[in-house]
Formats: sequence, structure tokens, C-alpha cells
Amino acid sequence: MAVKGLGQVDQKYDGSKLNIAIIHARWNSTIISALVDGAIAKLKEFGVQEANIYVETVPGSFELPYATRKLYQKKLKEGVVLDAIIPIGVLIKGSTMHFEYICDSTTNALMRLNETMDIPIIFGVLTCLTEEQAELRAGLKPGMHNHGEDWGAAAVEMAVKYNC
Amino acid sequence: MAVKGLGQVDQKYDGSKLNIAIIHARWNSTIISALVDGAIAKLKEFGVQEANIYVETVPGSFELPYATRKLYQKKLKEGVVLDAIIPIGVLIKGSTMHFEYICDSTTNALMRLNETMDIPIIFGVLTCLTEEQAELRAGLKPGMHNHGEDWGAAAVEMAVKYNC
Amino acid sequence: MAVKGLGQVDQKYDGSKLNIAIIHARWNSTIISALVDGAIAKLKEFGVQEANIYVETVPGSFELPYATRKLYQKKLKEGVVLDAIIPIGVLIKGSTMHFEYICDSTTNALMRLNETMDIPIIFGVLTCLTEEQAELRAGLKPGMHNHGEDWGAAAVEMAVKYNC
Amino acid sequence: MAVKGLGQVDQKYDGSKLNIAIIHARWNSTIISALVDGAIAKLKEFGVQEANIYVETVPGSFELPYATRKLYQKKLKEGVVLDAIIPIGVLIKGSTMHFEYICDSTTNALMRLNETMDIPIIFGVLTCLTEEQAELRAGLKPGMHNHGEDWGAAAVEMAVKYNC
Amino acid sequence: MAVKGLGQVDQKYDGSKLNIAIIHARWNSTIISALVDGAIAKLKEFGVQEANIYVETVPGSFELPYATRKLYQKKLKEGVVLDAIIPIGVLIKGSTMHFEYICDSTTNALMRLNETMDIPIIFGVLTCLTEEQAELRAGLKPGMHNHGEDWGAAAVEMAVKYNC
Repeated sequence: MAVKGLGQVDQKYDGSKLNIAIIHARWNSTIISALVDGAIAKLKEFGVQEANIYVETVPGSFELPYATRKLYQKKLKEGVVLDAIIPIGVLIKGSTMHFEYICDSTTNALMRLNETMDIPIIFGVLTCLTEEQAELRAGLKPGMHNHGEDWGAAAVEMAVKYNC
Repeated sequence: MAVKGLGQVDQKYDGSKLNIAIIHARWNSTIISALVDGAIAKLKEFGVQEANIYVETVPGSFELPYATRKLYQKKLKEGVVLDAIIPIGVLIKGSTMHFEYICDSTTNALMRLNETMDIPIIFGVLTCLTEEQAELRAGLKPGMHNHGEDWGAAAVEMAVKYNC
Repeated sequence: MAVKGLGQVDQKYDGSKLNIAIIHARWNSTIISALVDGAIAKLKEFGVQEANIYVETVPGSFELPYATRKLYQKKLKEGVVLDAIIPIGVLIKGSTMHFEYICDSTTNALMRLNETMDIPIIFGVLTCLTEEQAELRAGLKPGMHNHGEDWGAAAVEMAVKYNC
Repeated sequence: MAVKGLGQVDQKYDGSKLNIAIIHARWNSTIISALVDGAIAKLKEFGVQEANIYVETVPGSFELPYATRKLYQKKLKEGVVLDAIIPIGVLIKGSTMHFEYICDSTTNALMRLNETMDIPIIFGVLTCLTEEQAELRAGLKPGMHNHGEDWGAAAVEMAVKYNC
Repeated sequence: MAVKGLGQVDQKYDGSKLNIAIIHARWNSTIISALVDGAIAKLKEFGVQEANIYVETVPGSFELPYATRKLYQKKLKEGVVLDAIIPIGVLIKGSTMHFEYICDSTTNALMRLNETMDIPIIFGVLTCLTEEQAELRAGLKPGMHNHGEDWGAAAVEMAVKYNC
């Protein structure tokens, strides 16, 4: 019996009234592009309007937490109340310990934003040991699943479910 | 002499006046279901009324801390003061480092909620290296103990004991 | 030359006016009992009155930080101002990663309480790889030192020294 | 296909009105100097005026977070509002565990400053296992890229993009 | 070319008006004593007056963060405004995981004090895998450097440089 696997969405959430931002790093851009596309496709499938999907970039994953926090403020000043943010980054193990410290600090910071902000911050960061692992998770190999889709679905569900 | 093992509950706590929420991830759903059932069974055994047990879901374990915090607020607006929350998730080691960073950030965030919230947040997350380890801890193998029961018992005890 | 080892207490502190709480997990109860006894014995040796030593329990080590924080509030409502709290737990490595994440989150949370609370929180948690390591540190093997004694002594010293 | 690599800057940002501080540790000074030079060269390339680039030093990387926070306050008292700070340090693995704990605490503290301060704090710390890794990343070997340049570029981009 | 190494102090700081506290653990006292002596010698070399150097002790390294925070308050009540604190401890790897969790929680807590307090907290904790590593870093072997001296120098520099 296969016990491991993503569960089904418990219901189809209505994203038609939501404002969702995607903020992604630019390192490893082939992978990133596929993930961003997957997230956007799923957001639209859940009814989020194209005009209400905001995409911005930062240099690397370490910049994601700061940008997430500030993008919310920036959009607010423009009159847009974001309902969820999906920070996306792809980290791949290199020869120094950079990977470990960036993964650790970025993951924990994005989690802490979930403790202090009033909208859900989805974890769209791949922490891979090889380039191939990243390609597989971005759906760039035949038959593979694009994790960006899960993040889009999670953003809509979390925004609708905990809108309080 | 076997020194290792779960201690006995120091007394039978009365859960009849408590409101308890279970919030679980949907990944690895067979395991999750068994754990949720175990927790509910034990809550009832301690006197918690079925109508006062609230069950909600989120996509994955990373969403548990945000949902835990918001569910408390959401229920409060509905006039229900939760006395304890049991976030439940099952994480199983995969080939990337996703497991390590999700386990780390989720565990620490659930702990921090215990430092900032005024109700106990029980740690209902399995951090397993294999699927079999998860099955064993969900009581899905003959003679094995369902850890969800411990979490239900802990929720009642902690809510009653530190109701101040 | 043996450089490693516990230093001597710099002076005999007077614990006769102190209120000290011990809050211990119930997992691995043989070890826990010995450690709690050791801590109490040392508290008394430093003059803490038996009536001013409060002992409470929680299911497991993850519950220690919440209970530590709440016990202080609970006692305050009863008119007792605690001067130090000694959370005691015994964690032993198992086959999943549960040990690592509970040790990490519990240790760091107890440390953070030392950054936010106005009384010292002593670190009474053993993080052992084997049962035998735990038995040795609880003084359950001939000639071995009971670490609970160190915790009792540290509680009195820290409470007296930094009573400001 | 090479999937790994730094992405292109999405546009040329105008740094002519920015005040940027570089604060660097003095350990491993050959490497540090090259990185600082690279950062300054890139800042100028993006239009930051030489008079608006402030360089200070601290003994080691552990001092970077405190200095970053205080330097902002110090400059403010002098009438200068910094728009970004680039803390630069080079950590190289030694025989004790010093490297691991300094890397971990420094990285996480610099990240937390990104959660509490209103200007971006760039991560200019190399966490290398060998001296050669550090030399390569400072552009001290033929054909190698100087990471300081990336940090300079990131500082300007982040300051301009999230100036809100 | 040797790239690794402590940089030179950028200038001679004047410590003659500073109040500096050293707070050290008592475990592994031979090493600790040498480190404390080294720190004091350097403080004096930078002009700190003997009467303005305060030395206190705690049982172990886990107590350092609480004591650091409280010592500042305690001295303030006595009319002394401390300008820097140097917590000193020596941790040596043992057979359980105690070393790892104490090193991690203590290092991160001392770092967090640098984020919340208005004076620099120097990192005077050795995290060694062997006793010999500790002896070497305390200058107890011929020709070896006493790290306590670096901490004394860092305390004066950081206090003078960021006195704002």
C-alpha cells in the first residue's frame, strides 16, 4: 500500500475575489519559470482573475522574506489588500555550506511570517540536492508533477478558509 | 529493565466542558485518518462532547502553524473559545531536503505558539524516515499503539491543568 | 590533566526564602523519578523549605515550555511568586526523527523563556542516545552522579544571584 | 542543460539617490577585501555615489548583526538614512564546531533583521569548508565570479524595489 | 598563501571610560580561568580600569543568556551602566547530545541579546570536540593564542564604535 502522497483538496475553493502575489527569486530560472507558471495556472483554475495575480522578483531566496513582508505593505499603499503570498525559490546544494544556511534561514523566516502576518505565506521553496530533483519537482520531466500547482491551490484554500 | 516508555496519566481529567480542535494536513491521508480517529476516540473517553470537537484540514504540515493561530481567532468570532488545539501531520523523508526543513520549521513554530498563545498546542506531527514507521505509530500494524490517542489525552490534561 | 568537569559552587546560597517549582514529563518515569528526587534533595540541602517546593507533571517534554510559563501564572494567582522553575524531561533517541525535533524545539523554547521571563528556568532535560546514558546521568548506576542535584543547586544560585 | 545559476537582473536600477553601508568582519582579510571591492564597484555601476557608500568594520561575523542594527541608528543620528546594509563576512570551517554555530546564529540573525528593520539587509557572508572555496567566490582565481558584486546589485535592487 | 586568520584591530580603542562585565560558567574551570584572564588582560591593555571590570559566575553555559540580561539590570540598579558584556563558557562534546543542544541554544540566545539589548554581547563560548581543542584556544599550550584576548578587544571596540 502506498501511504505517502499528497491528499486531495477537500473542496473546490472560490478564488474569484482574491488578490494573490507570487514573489520569486531569479536563481535557477528555468526551474523557477515552470513553478511560477504552474502556480498561476492553478490560481486561475480556482477562479483567481489574471488582473489580481501580482508577480515580482528578487535576486535570491534569502531576499524572499523581506520582500514578502514589504510587498504586502507596498500593495496596501496602492489600495490592494493581498489575500496570500507565494514566495518561490529553488535552492540546489553546492560545495560550500551556503545551501544549508540559506534553506534554514529562509524556511524559518517564511514560517515566522505565518506567525506574524494576517495572510497565509505559502512555502514555495525547493530545497534540492541535485538539479535533477529540481527539474522533477517543476514538472520538467515527462509524467512529473509541477509543485507550483500545489502552491497555487494551497494559497486559495488557505486564504478562503482562514479569512478571519 | 525497560526504562523507556510513555508514563501513565497522573489522573483522569474531565474534558466534558472543553472545546478542542484538531487541524490536520491531508498528505499521507491513510496515516492521518488513523491518527485523527485515535485522537477523537481518546477525547471522547475523557468526556469531551462530540459537538465540541472541531476538525479542519490544511494541505500540508507547513500550513499547520498559521491555521492553528487563525482557527483560534475564527472560532472565537463564532463564539467558541477553544481550550486546546491538536495540529496533526505526517512527514516522511524523501530524496530532497524538504522533509528536514519542513519538520524543523513546523515543529519550532508549533512550539512558539505554545509561548505566545493562551491555550496548549499539542505536537501531533510524526517525523518519520520510512512509511512503515508512520504506519506503526498510527496503530496500523497489529499490536501497535496509535499516537493520536496520546495527543488527545495530552490536550485534555494540559487544558484542564493549566486553565489559568 | 582532566580539564573537563563541573566546577564547584562559588558559595553556599541560602534558599530558605525561595519558592521553587519542578515540572516534569512522565515519559521514561524511572529516570525522571530519580532526577526529581535528586533536585529536591539538593533544594532542601540549600535550605529551600519542603512546603515551598512545588511538583507538577506534564505528559512529555514538548509540553514543558507551555507548562513552565503557565505554572508561573497559575501560582501567581494562588499568591505564590515562584523564584525559579526546573523543567525536567528525559529524551532518548528512537528510530524516527522525533527525538531530534523535540530536543531542538524544547531546548530552544526553554532558553527563550530565560529571555522573556523574570525568573531563571533551569535546563533539566537529558538528551540521550541510549537508555544507559540516561540511567548513568540519573545516578542509577553505582558511583554515578545524579544530574538532578546540579539542577537544584543551579535553581537556588540563579534565583538568589539575579534577584533583581 | 545547465539549470543552476544566477539569474539576470530584471532591470537596471538607479542607485544615485541611495545611501548604502557595507559593514565587514576583519577575519580572513584578503578574501574580505576582494568582496568589499566587488560590492563597491557594483554599487557605483548602479549609480550609487561614492560619498554615499559607508564602510565600517567589526572583529568577526558574530558581531555583524549587532553592528548592522546599530549602524543604522548611528547614521540616522548623523542625519543619514541608510537604504540598505551589506554585512560581509567570510567563515571557514575549522576543527571545532565554532564554524557551525557562528554560521547558524549569524545567518539567522541577519535574516531576522530583515523581518524587523525597514531596509533590506543583504546576506554577504560566505560559509566555506575550505580556504579555496572562499578565494573562488571572491573572484581571486582566474575566471571566477566575485560574489561581492551580486551583493552590491542586490542592495540597490531591493532598496529601490521595496522602498515603501 | 594563508587566507585564514584574525584581522588586525583597525585602531586602538580607548576603553578608559567603559564598564565591562565578564560572566563565566564554572564548568571546565582550568580553561575558563585562562580565558577570563586573557580577556581581563586585554581589557586593561585597552585602558579599561580594573575597578570597572565586573566578574560574575554561573553554573553552566545554558545560564549565560539569562545572567547576561539580568546582570545588566542588576548593575543598573547599582548605578553602573555596563557598556559591554562578555559571557564566557567552554563546551566540550560528550557522549549524549547535550553538547549540541546547549551549544545551539546558548549561541542563538546570546545572538538574540545582540538584537534586543543596547550594548554588545561578545561571544565568548568555545564549542570544542575535544579537551585539547579547548586548551589550545585558551592559550594553555606553548605558542598558542588565548581567545579571551580577542573577546576583550572586541568588547572595547564594539562598545566604543557603536555607542549610539
